[in-house]
Amino acid sequence: MEFDLIVIGSGPGGYVAAIRASQLGQKVAIVERENLGGICLNWGCIPTKALLKSGEKYESLTHLKDYGLSADKVGFDFEAIIQRSRGVAATMNKGVAFLMKKHKIEVIEGSAKLEKGKESPKVVVALKAGGSRTVEAKAVMLAVGARARALPQIGLEADGDRIWAYREALAPKSLPKSFVVIGSGAIGLEFASFYRALGAEVTVVEAVDRIMPVEDEEVSRAARKAFEKRGLKFRVGAKVTKVTKSAKGVSVAVEVDGKAETLEAEVCISAVGITANTDGIGLEALGVELDRGHIKIDGHCQTNVKGLFAIGDCAGAPWLAHKASHEGIHAAEYIAGYKTPNVHSPIAGCTYTQPQVASVGLTEQACKAEKREIKVGRFPFKVNGKAVAAGETEGFVKTIFDARTGALIGAHMIGAEVTEMIQGYVTAITMEATEEDIHGIVYPHPTMSEAMHEASLDAYERVLHL
Amino acid sequence: MEFDLIVIGSGPGGYVAAIRASQLGQKVAIVERENLGGICLNWGCIPTKALLKSGEKYESLTHLKDYGLSADKVGFDFEAIIQRSRGVAATMNKGVAFLMKKHKIEVIEGSAKLEKGKESPKVVVALKAGGSRTVEAKAVMLAVGARARALPQIGLEADGDRIWAYREALAPKSLPKSFVVIGSGAIGLEFASFYRALGAEVTVVEAVDRIMPVEDEEVSRAARKAFEKRGLKFRVGAKVTKVTKSAKGVSVAVEVDGKAETLEAEVCISAVGITANTDGIGLEALGVELDRGHIKIDGHCQTNVKGLFAIGDCAGAPWLAHKASHEGIHAAEYIAGYKTPNVHSPIAGCTYTQPQVASVGLTEQACKAEKREIKVGRFPFKVNGKAVAAGETEGFVKTIFDARTGALIGAHMIGAEVTEMIQGYVTAITMEATEEDIHGIVYPHPTMSEAMHEASLDAYERVLHL
Repeated sequence: MEFDLIVIGSGPGGYVAAIRASQLGQKVAIVERENLGGICLNWGCIPTKALLKSGEKYESLTHLKDYGLSADKVGFDFEAIIQRSRGVAATMNKGVAFLMKKHKIEVIEGSAKLEKGKESPKVVVALKAGGSRTVEAKAVMLAVGARARALPQIGLEADGDRIWAYREALAPKSLPKSFVVIGSGAIGLEFASFYRALGAEVTVVEAVDRIMPVEDEEVSRAARKAFEKRGLKFRVGAKVTKVTKSAKGVSVAVEVDGKAETLEAEVCISAVGITANTDGIGLEALGVELDRGHIKIDGHCQTNVKGLFAIGDCAGAPWLAHKASHEGIHAAEYIAGYKTPNVHSPIAGCTYTQPQVASVGLTEQACKAEKREIKVGRFPFKVNGKAVAAGETEGFVKTIFDARTGALIGAHMIGAEVTEMIQGYVTAITMEATEEDIHGIVYPHPTMSEAMHEASLDAYERVLHL
Repeated sequence: MEFDLIVIGSGPGGYVAAIRASQLGQKVAIVERENLGGICLNWGCIPTKALLKSGEKYESLTHLKDYGLSADKVGFDFEAIIQRSRGVAATMNKGVAFLMKKHKIEVIEGSAKLEKGKESPKVVVALKAGGSRTVEAKAVMLAVGARARALPQIGLEADGDRIWAYREALAPKSLPKSFVVIGSGAIGLEFASFYRALGAEVTVVEAVDRIMPVEDEEVSRAARKAFEKRGLKFRVGAKVTKVTKSAKGVSVAVEVDGKAETLEAEVCISAVGITANTDGIGLEALGVELDRGHIKIDGHCQTNVKGLFAIGDCAGAPWLAHKASHEGIHAAEYIAGYKTPNVHSPIAGCTYTQPQVASVGLTEQACKAEKREIKVGRFPFKVNGKAVAAGETEGFVKTIFDARTGALIGAHMIGAEVTEMIQGYVTAITMEATEEDIHGIVYPHPTMSEAMHEASLDAYERVLHL
């Protein structure tokens, strides 16, 4: 065998798996058809955060007086903002190239297709440089990711002109004056947040009856209120029936409560979910089992085909880079012979809007659906000393404990920098913390993280500052 | 008995203890001689954070171009900045008054003195309103705090004019052009950071050979470099021999490496530590044991005198509000009959400079002094995707594990918002996490908190992004 492991796709899950395998002495190749680092680094998580930071800073310039500060002629250079974001993506992409070299991982540039092999499927790569190369390994890991879902039947397909998906939204030539964003998940709302911060008129359309449908209902409500305060508009329970391009822009026909409406804007951003990249790579011929469009895997990321593993977006929800990396590391260790327990671990979700949203574990609604007895605690940032001092009093923390065992089973946060704070709850849930454990943790003062303590105290009717 | 518990001092430790006791059905009084909320809320943690936020935002206005933004005539209104900070303190102070009322805790305004009593010392309060009142309870808790240390023998005593301690530094009438700050702990550096952000010339004098002497040496070094980049000046290993006021300002005579030097400035800020408020409250007559100026307590915050407890600053280091609150809650529960284990718990330290510093557990130097075998990991923010995207690449994370047991025993961070991130490590150490536990935690992407994961991976030679 030429390699111990071939990883197909170099997003965070893929390249991290390759690094871990290499650390464990495996000979590794990684196949990438486009940019090292995949969507996340080049067209996803990372460049959006760069844009959002510019938007956030720009928005903060309108609140200077609150802090005793002042400035005239506040402005922005849209091209510079976009260029900065592209520069950040390029930096990270070079970083991955460096890491591959350092760990002696062979990078094969091209599109991979699987064929029947011996210990694992053969990988036939149509090389970018022309020609093809067939490589074999003891194990093959699919980390092929996903792409924006298109709905051509209603005209919702990115065209780079009037209809954008994340790629177009990340690198536009100029700043449109108005948007209709379809989908109120993290991707849709982050773009809505960014473009609104720069002054665009933005309406977000959501099919279900509340925005951020995967979040806890209370968070959805608070988020909507906070976003509306910033001028975002929402149409929830709105079914998009047709997207039509026009000379001046785009018309989005929606049905709300059985009533037809038309939303007009210069540009429509489509953020209606993703489609796993499972087509055209030979899965059918190998008989790889899928589950609702995603590759079916077991607790060690193994598919039903011998020697074939799958991780990340192509292997199912949640479609998050850190879930992919975690699976990648687990699978790499498993392939290298490490006996680790299964891959399941609490995975937090983060949305980098203003305010930010972060959560881990179950929502109150999910608990109720399971008829689970729970204790729920809440604490608003508006009475947190640090939040008041920083002028960042928006939002709250909500914790959910299993009433029987006292285990923390859900944590939901909305507010400034909660995406950096949620790891504390992830740590707690991963370590199976109970309410007693969390009540005993000394959260430093003065921090917004004290609200994490208070929300857990509140669940047991011993909150201090309410 | 009129009360179950009398708490003397209404800083965070004191008022939180009173609330907890009240939650447990105790009849509680709290004695306060000045402002509800004590130093922390009125003249410490909270109002400094308000100032620092203004300073931080002002400084960020000089980096707008990095984010594609622009503004003219950037300025500040010093009085408005101070007023905002005082307003924040007033808000928090009112909040404590509300909480006392809500929990039916009787607030006695005046100065307390202890006298021999039956179940616990009698509390004689010289009332603010005039006259005196003697109250008794089953237990008395001293939460009398501490004040800025003065060194009159070298002329270092706050005078509100040329020599300031934290009170004067929090509410000055105008902005001096230059400062000498004596002491490079959290208090000294936070004021240095704030006044430097507003353009003042600031020299910080430190007696030992590095700034932030309680922090890990590597953090000290990085902090100094970062602060110097912002124009702060340092004289370390510098013994202050005399502080002399003059018409124009103040002269600070120091000795560095046996050589005499004089530092001149408009104002000198004294931040050379604190003195526990143990004088004049009748401790000597009761025979309360002290230990180097602090009240000696056991694992349940009990003094050697029956029914007398002490918590927070007056009961020893670390002089941190959250340590006080934690002790207060523990003691309140113990007094109410709860059998809890001892009060000892990992306490994080936070410094809100730019960049911020946060740490918990042992430094590498402390481990070496104990001849403990350790594994040390480091990860710099400059290769963290979120930090690059946010343009906040300064700093790093350092973790220390016990080589034998794998227990996380120290974590040290310098960078943006690390004060909000450290709680994750506090959670881990409190729950006795080992390296295996932490390696298995899925830190969300893209966050700066991923550096917390990487630093722990690095300690075991399995870092991913270096």
